[in-house]
Amino acid sequence: MAAVLLRRMSLARLHRQVSFILEVDKLKEVFRQTLNTQSRRQENDAEHSWHLCLAVIVLAEHANAPHLDVLRVLKMLILHDLVEIDAGDTFAYDVARVAGQHDREVLAADRIFGLLPADQAGEFRALWDEFEARATPEARFAAAIDRFQPMLLNCHTEGASWRRHGVTQDRVLARNAHVAEGAHAVWEYVVAMVQKAVDDGHLAPASPSA
Amino acid sequence: MAAVLLRRMSLARLHRQVSFILEVDKLKEVFRQTLNTQSRRQENDAEHSWHLCLAVIVLAEHANAPHLDVLRVLKMLILHDLVEIDAGDTFAYDVARVAGQHDREVLAADRIFGLLPADQAGEFRALWDEFEARATPEARFAAAIDRFQPMLLNCHTEGASWRRHGVTQDRVLARNAHVAEGAHAVWEYVVAMVQKAVDDGHLAPASPSA
Repeated sequence: MAAVLLRRMSLARLHRQVSFILEVDKLKEVFRQTLNTQSRRQENDAEHSWHLCLAVIVLAEHANAPHLDVLRVLKMLILHDLVEIDAGDTFAYDVARVAGQHDREVLAADRIFGLLPADQAGEFRALWDEFEARATPEARFAAAIDRFQPMLLNCHTEGASWRRHGVTQDRVLARNAHVAEGAHAVWEYVVAMVQKAVDDGHLAPASPSA
Repeated sequence: MAAVLLRRMSLARLHRQVSFILEVDKLKEVFRQTLNTQSRRQENDAEHSWHLCLAVIVLAEHANAPHLDVLRVLKMLILHDLVEIDAGDTFAYDVARVAGQHDREVLAADRIFGLLPADQAGEFRALWDEFEARATPEARFAAAIDRFQPMLLNCHTEGASWRRHGVTQDRVLARNAHVAEGAHAVWEYVVAMVQKAVDDGHLAPASPSA
């Protein structure tokens, strides 16, 4: 009798987990400003999240922290954009939308993580909060990779999304300076790469008002 | 002098790693037979790989193995489809193409992982070999999730890719039976889900010749 009840509870839990896996299929339809290097179509959040995970396992050795918990970094990056299913993608240089971004995303986190069994909802929400706060070495490295990858794609699509939105070198460097908090070597690479984009005429050096 | 040399070697290594991260951007352009549930467009390998990683961190508790190395499972799934950049996607029910699949993919693995510094090329190639061999608990669970996710999407797109290719219930169950080797509970879920697809008229019960 107890065994039957336990099995039924476990099955109910699995059903709830699968409903969550189905719901987040929507991440594949949230499109970003960045273009993919091959097709030059806009990247979606799901493929972006995969590309970050890939970059983490390649670049983990360059993290500032000597003993990084790579599993926690990956979990953060697998989950970090799920809130955009409800809140939409916020372009990093859109000052007006960046202002209300966190409030929109907190509501989304409540709903989306709330689809899971309570223990997992709590675990995933804590990972998302940790990522947002950037106060641990893992969150800082995850955030560094989350900023590095769009700049990399931009530099290999002739600065397409920067040019489209009139973003300039000074704003790129200011907005992404916290890459250095996660990985000094990656930040050095970024500064040189962004300078090359300026030299190649793919990124304007400074705002006209600066 | 030694410090300068060391820094130069480290920078060369980082450049090589970034070239790999750029090369695998191509995974976003390898399209699968499965449709995404929302837009009903074909899923690409990059978003598929992300969806598997997400499913792993949600479903890891259901793995047959009690102490799963989840980080190794995630690494395998982040990397498992990179060979398709050169070898293309092989539809699981395409008997003719499945025959030559492994040979094509080994050539691809040589080239793609070979872009990395030798130590990482070796590590990633070993992870891919482990995934392919399905001989460890981690590889078995990774393979189970890799089969579960397309069936889940198929069942929630009215069996679109099964119907398009005339795949039947008996073939679905035979081709994916090894899900049970990775996670009994997930396999039980699959059997019931696939039966529902038959009951709903989205999957034919058996081949005409069976």
